Amino acid sequence: MVSTIQPLAEKDNAAIVELYKKVRAQTMQIVAPLEIEDYVVQTAEFMSPPRWHLGHTSWFFETVLQSYQSGYKAYSEDYLFYFNSYYEGFGPRMERAKRGTKSRPTVKETLSYRSRIDELMLEFLEQLPLHAQSDSILFLIRLGLEHEMQHQELLVYDIKHLLNDQYAGEIRPAPAPAEKVSGMVEIEGGLFRLGYSGSGFAFDNEKPAHQVFLQDFALDRAPVSNGEFLEFILARGYQDYRWWFSDGWEVIAKEQWKAPLYWELHDGAWIIRDFSGLHSAESKANEPLSHVSYYEASAFAKWAGKRLPTEAEWEKAACSASDRNRIQTFPWGDVAVDASKANLFENRHWSVTPIGAFPEGQSEYGCHQMIGDVWEWTSSDYSPYPGFKSEIDEYNDKWFINQRVLRGGSFATPQLHIRSTYRNFFHPNERWMVSGLRCAKDI
Amino acid sequence: MVSTIQPLAEKDNAAIVELYKKVRAQTMQIVAPLEIEDYVVQTAEFMSPPRWHLGHTSWFFETVLQSYQSGYKAYSEDYLFYFNSYYEGFGPRMERAKRGTKSRPTVKETLSYRSRIDELMLEFLEQLPLHAQSDSILFLIRLGLEHEMQHQELLVYDIKHLLNDQYAGEIRPAPAPAEKVSGMVEIEGGLFRLGYSGSGFAFDNEKPAHQVFLQDFALDRAPVSNGEFLEFILARGYQDYRWWFSDGWEVIAKEQWKAPLYWELHDGAWIIRDFSGLHSAESKANEPLSHVSYYEASAFAKWAGKRLPTEAEWEKAACSASDRNRIQTFPWGDVAVDASKANLFENRHWSVTPIGAFPEGQSEYGCHQMIGDVWEWTSSDYSPYPGFKSEIDEYNDKWFINQRVLRGGSFATPQLHIRSTYRNFFHPNERWMVSGLRCAKDI
Amino acid sequence: MVSTIQPLAEKDNAAIVELYKKVRAQTMQIVAPLEIEDYVVQTAEFMSPPRWHLGHTSWFFETVLQSYQSGYKAYSEDYLFYFNSYYEGFGPRMERAKRGTKSRPTVKETLSYRSRIDELMLEFLEQLPLHAQSDSILFLIRLGLEHEMQHQELLVYDIKHLLNDQYAGEIRPAPAPAEKVSGMVEIEGGLFRLGYSGSGFAFDNEKPAHQVFLQDFALDRAPVSNGEFLEFILARGYQDYRWWFSDGWEVIAKEQWKAPLYWELHDGAWIIRDFSGLHSAESKANEPLSHVSYYEASAFAKWAGKRLPTEAEWEKAACSASDRNRIQTFPWGDVAVDASKANLFENRHWSVTPIGAFPEGQSEYGCHQMIGDVWEWTSSDYSPYPGFKSEIDEYNDKWFINQRVLRGGSFATPQLHIRSTYRNFFHPNERWMVSGLRCAKDI
Amino acid sequence: MVSTIQPLAEKDNAAIVELYKKVRAQTMQIVAPLEIEDYVVQTAEFMSPPRWHLGHTSWFFETVLQSYQSGYKAYSEDYLFYFNSYYEGFGPRMERAKRGTKSRPTVKETLSYRSRIDELMLEFLEQLPLHAQSDSILFLIRLGLEHEMQHQELLVYDIKHLLNDQYAGEIRPAPAPAEKVSGMVEIEGGLFRLGYSGSGFAFDNEKPAHQVFLQDFALDRAPVSNGEFLEFILARGYQDYRWWFSDGWEVIAKEQWKAPLYWELHDGAWIIRDFSGLHSAESKANEPLSHVSYYEASAFAKWAGKRLPTEAEWEKAACSASDRNRIQTFPWGDVAVDASKANLFENRHWSVTPIGAFPEGQSEYGCHQMIGDVWEWTSSDYSPYPGFKSEIDEYNDKWFINQRVLRGGSFATPQLHIRSTYRNFFHPNERWMVSGLRCAKDI
Repeated sequence: MVSTIQPLAEKDNAAIVELYKKVRAQTMQIVAPLEIEDYVVQTAEFMSPPRWHLGHTSWFFETVLQSYQSGYKAYSEDYLFYFNSYYEGFGPRMERAKRGTKSRPTVKETLSYRSRIDELMLEFLEQLPLHAQSDSILFLIRLGLEHEMQHQELLVYDIKHLLNDQYAGEIRPAPAPAEKVSGMVEIEGGLFRLGYSGSGFAFDNEKPAHQVFLQDFALDRAPVSNGEFLEFILARGYQDYRWWFSDGWEVIAKEQWKAPLYWELHDGAWIIRDFSGLHSAESKANEPLSHVSYYEASAFAKWAGKRLPTEAEWEKAACSASDRNRIQTFPWGDVAVDASKANLFENRHWSVTPIGAFPEGQSEYGCHQMIGDVWEWTSSDYSPYPGFKSEIDEYNDKWFINQRVLRGGSFATPQLHIRSTYRNFFHPNERWMVSGLRCAKDI
Repeated sequence: MVSTIQPLAEKDNAAIVELYKKVRAQTMQIVAPLEIEDYVVQTAEFMSPPRWHLGHTSWFFETVLQSYQSGYKAYSEDYLFYFNSYYEGFGPRMERAKRGTKSRPTVKETLSYRSRIDELMLEFLEQLPLHAQSDSILFLIRLGLEHEMQHQELLVYDIKHLLNDQYAGEIRPAPAPAEKVSGMVEIEGGLFRLGYSGSGFAFDNEKPAHQVFLQDFALDRAPVSNGEFLEFILARGYQDYRWWFSDGWEVIAKEQWKAPLYWELHDGAWIIRDFSGLHSAESKANEPLSHVSYYEASAFAKWAGKRLPTEAEWEKAACSASDRNRIQTFPWGDVAVDASKANLFENRHWSVTPIGAFPEGQSEYGCHQMIGDVWEWTSSDYSPYPGFKSEIDEYNDKWFINQRVLRGGSFATPQLHIRSTYRNFFHPNERWMVSGLRCAKDI
Repeated sequence: MVSTIQPLAEKDNAAIVELYKKVRAQTMQIVAPLEIEDYVVQTAEFMSPPRWHLGHTSWFFETVLQSYQSGYKAYSEDYLFYFNSYYEGFGPRMERAKRGTKSRPTVKETLSYRSRIDELMLEFLEQLPLHAQSDSILFLIRLGLEHEMQHQELLVYDIKHLLNDQYAGEIRPAPAPAEKVSGMVEIEGGLFRLGYSGSGFAFDNEKPAHQVFLQDFALDRAPVSNGEFLEFILARGYQDYRWWFSDGWEVIAKEQWKAPLYWELHDGAWIIRDFSGLHSAESKANEPLSHVSYYEASAFAKWAGKRLPTEAEWEKAACSASDRNRIQTFPWGDVAVDASKANLFENRHWSVTPIGAFPEGQSEYGCHQMIGDVWEWTSSDYSPYPGFKSEIDEYNDKWFINQRVLRGGSFATPQLHIRSTYRNFFHPNERWMVSGLRCAKDI
Repeated sequence: MVSTIQPLAEKDNAAIVELYKKVRAQTMQIVAPLEIEDYVVQTAEFMSPPRWHLGHTSWFFETVLQSYQSGYKAYSEDYLFYFNSYYEGFGPRMERAKRGTKSRPTVKETLSYRSRIDELMLEFLEQLPLHAQSDSILFLIRLGLEHEMQHQELLVYDIKHLLNDQYAGEIRPAPAPAEKVSGMVEIEGGLFRLGYSGSGFAFDNEKPAHQVFLQDFALDRAPVSNGEFLEFILARGYQDYRWWFSDGWEVIAKEQWKAPLYWELHDGAWIIRDFSGLHSAESKANEPLSHVSYYEASAFAKWAGKRLPTEAEWEKAACSASDRNRIQTFPWGDVAVDASKANLFENRHWSVTPIGAFPEGQSEYGCHQMIGDVWEWTSSDYSPYPGFKSEIDEYNDKWFINQRVLRGGSFATPQLHIRSTYRNFFHPNERWMVSGLRCAKDI
């Protein structure tokens, strides 16, 4: 599974054990308020039942045991089939759209499986320093934990699609905006070093760091807000072909989209439904827009006389101009994240926060909330960087087509998981994730 | 909902209360062995989650309360939406294929709903003799109980599709065959009175009884067995267009059918999976074939040089030649059913029984197991009888197209629910119900 | 191809040669006004390009030559592939929906093929009396000519779908109604002999004649008119679920049907487009309704408080009560058809004629225009008669499912081709043929 | 239609008239060998009937007359509907997939329309110097001619799909290879000016020219050949998921692709069908591969241990390193194209030519046949260049999603139409155009 082994910094066994426990526990916290019924239902083809995530993330670690623990016997052949997601290299698997058609393994059985894998992994980790391939294994474990954090975010999306305001978890109130943020910043072009070049963990698709040449550009200081998007709707933006790509125009006709996902029209007024209930769109006017597809994001930008930024433009604006070493960890170091600077999962708001709520987290260029709140669509196709080398089979490379890059993480992203070089990707018609945008402009 | 009110015999209030309790309790017995997860999963578009059946059968009684209990307030608007099946007259409803996309109401909430409806119904029934429309109401209650028995049978199908040999309910062993049954009986044609003319409960689609003229014909003494159908498979019957209707030939190509549902090919041998486990087809050779579509049933008959009977032929063969009053209740009276005569749900075999297991239940013409074991496909289109009058809106009449009649009930049919005049109906490509056949022949 | 050989009356070789020439020539007359472009275009999946009909009807005769002319070599392997319609027994073939994706063979090449087959057939027919299997061959030739007449009617449908009022053929004006026809006739039930028992040509699906028992019934004296159907439309019949089968309700929603095929809404008024141009529905109010599906026909009947007749009811009403020999040829003998009695293809109206236009053609019961004008939907499923024996492989028997019987022929049916026992059949959602209805009622 | 007017060099009226006549005549030469039937058939959803191209290219000029010729009346409202392709701004239009369902207007009528538009255009062009908006109009006329040249190429694709080796046009024999071409060239990275900056005609999507930064890379000296691709097929490349994007793996499974379009397996040997007949793949081993999708192109490259070039890499390799002014016209000036240097439409080979056939046309870096023969897939998403300004509504900008850039033109591209900066684009699953590839590599 590992084609190229990277030397890893985290060789301290205690640290990896602690991280393992912490990440695995966080998954369980997310699902804790669910009823048994909630674990097994699949609301749409692109969604997965929560119980599946619990099993699949454990399956990932079981594949490590299968590869590196001599004499390991599979926990259950059925589980290997059911909990594989899309890896051709690991044999046949359940069709994605059918994940919600099976009631077994039960939640209890899945949790037993999960516990058993945890036991075995912790035993395995104890012996790890003696293992001849400890570097490869450490890499895979870190990968498995990053993978699990990705699924934590997906769990939030899936639970939102399933329950939304019926979810019974604790939600911490969002902070008030500390200042008003508006307008654009102008950023000089020229050569820019795009991608990850640090020594911590990063996905292969963020590497290698390499020179690109940028033109001068301007970028919004804040993400596009619900209020701005409501203007687009009221200006009949969904009814005017001029703002839309041809493919997008077809999608909104076929799906009959008239607003972002989770917006509902009640007696002529737009309402946004989220984990904390129903809100008038007006009352959320100063919050970042979310749950729009790439088609809607680019239509809005065109209507506003702007455009989406490329991912290089976004990354440049997010990072320090003077200190390239800060690229990888913006605006914090690898370890010490200060939750007062961005709205990430650990803040437990389960929601976007008002624009201007995190003034200390702004980039040197003055852009707010680039990290956290909402993933921001860029105009960049999801392609390999020049010099790309796949480090993990079938993880990132087989998706390098038909998708767009999103940047910056959302309120559902664990803080350890995000970087300013992080490249997320979705198809242009998808909008069940926490996706918004920020506009750019040629100058 | 009732367009024509029928005078009812069962005016004894105590009896209806007892029947209500008994039928409602039987539904709960079927689901008792399920895990919570099993209640909410939908395995295919044509299936429903067991929790939905619990709610829907209660919803039926709630519509009675809504119509006849003055001042009644709906238990929950959401439940009205979710638990309606297909009644346009009762407002909007959840799309059938989406019944498995909701985890709420939970099983517990659904059971509370069910209990509350039972409480209210029992109170309502106590006051019933005083009600000005007691006849209409009694009819609806009986209808609701028949409806519930239909759903008990559907529950068995759905649980089989979901769990099959993983279902943990108690299964009573099937009796041994008492005699060998083979060959055909010859039955004289002439005028025959088709349909229900008794004074008990029967659906509007079984009425009115009316004259039809039959040609002489022969009918198999026993249902087609797994052994006979295995011969058809081995003779490459699924690969020879000559036996198939054009539409059927397309269906088996598209669905890649090579055998009945629940037959699996293990190392070159056909295996049948049922509630009690996996069995070689050979070991089940003397049992009635089940889970075939109309296409497969008619292809087999053509291959065998025979044909399917019409429903009139079937009914004539099932009933007494001398005593037309016995038509309606074959071979028992309305009330006293003797479980030694047919394999119905109360026998709790959860399976077909060997051919020849119920010699006392044979018809006067010598046909065995016409009632119970498997529903038998007839060649008759599901159409209204001449003089048909709809008694219940949207219950039977809106389905009078594109379906075929099946007769006789199955091991999953409650004994009170079945009659020799009962007309069940499915589309020709359906086979998830317990459907088999018996061949006829011109003479 | 012939499973059972019928002794034939037409042994006069000159007569069969003359019939062959006449029928083949009539096909060419229909297509004569077409432009080359019209011959090759397929307007919908269920349609065929006219050039395909020319080739396919010739292919039919080529299969006769292949079977009975020793040493015969196929004209072209490609043509065998392209011009086969659906006969599995004759090898692979072009998918129906793709008939319009080929420009070759050209029209000229197809006509050469047709001419060559005609030459060979006429030579073959000359030698026929000497042939050992002349009876079988004569049957097939007659069948081939009946087949060709079926395709003549299909050609009219296809040309209407393609060109409608742009078709440049000569159209003879329709006669004026000779009398006003309204109301219903009452017809006594009892035993009735259904099906063909004469000695002329009839399809296997019309045989054997057999007893059926009918209840008393009433039948409309005239087909339902455009004016009556317009009332149904204006009464919002397409918007009221109560009149529709569940399947029909889905079809009209999906297809967005609001009126019969070829009805167009121009500035709030319904217009009917036919071969002679555009007409207000009002101006056609007294003409038989056409181009409705079974769903629309039965919805109308239900709305009108009536029902569709069974095919046995229809046939009884169409035939003489006293003279069963007239059943087969109603109301004329096999040969001498008097075009003043019914609106059939030879009248060259290319349209329905007003109700009451053919008083001499009324049946003994007083029903008008049962033959000609429009095919009439019956409520009968298309199934084999008791005692049915297939005479021709894959011609009628593989369609005995999912279709309804229509009776009586239309203005596009050649007179030699129609009989009162003739059973036409289409799926309930089809309406591109000239299909109307006449209502019945229980009495 | 013109949002930004560009000053044009071609103000000589005689020259534009001559160009108009020449381009319009060339379209007619392509269709001259067709039969009438060939003009109206649509072979697949993505294809158009040739008669439609004749009308559509004329419709384009009619929109110019409508905008700039005062008092102009539409030739036919029906034609406006039928011959519009996808321009929302020009009102409703025929669905693309239905272009083959109409036989009218006939070919003759379409040619009359075409002639009439030519007459009117030539009159209009005579008066053009006096027109107040002559610059805008000249731009639109040039655009109309470029548009027509695009459709000339599409006509070749459509005729190939329809007729292939049945096309009766004259085909000039391909030249023999002048030298053996193999291996890769290494090209230094650094800043590169991408895009068009000349003063001739270029599409808005080629502009503005702008700096990009390239890494060092290597590029194949020749396009991938049929022989090389045959090795990939024989190495079971279509059966190994490791070479494929996930989306591509699904496409080849669904479409059952085992080789490029127009490759056929005859008795175990691969045959390529083209305009000149059937050829063994071996006999075509030294010719550029064509008719592969992006999925197949990138799978091949991955299997070969290489990758596809970006469009910037491709353009740099195609152009002179020393003389940036030659970028736009490679390797000839705007007017004087020397047909000995590249295989373009005017060579009339109707086919690719052997690798090495055009040594004089090689780029300064030593890459052969970059212009002509086959369009080469690049890994670049089809997106606007930084600073892009739309010059023509709905022409290029509404397609900036879900497509990949191809470069260099093919044997079906008119020489006037191609430039080394030209950006063609197709979806990754398309392969009906003349599409091949050339591999790159990181160094």
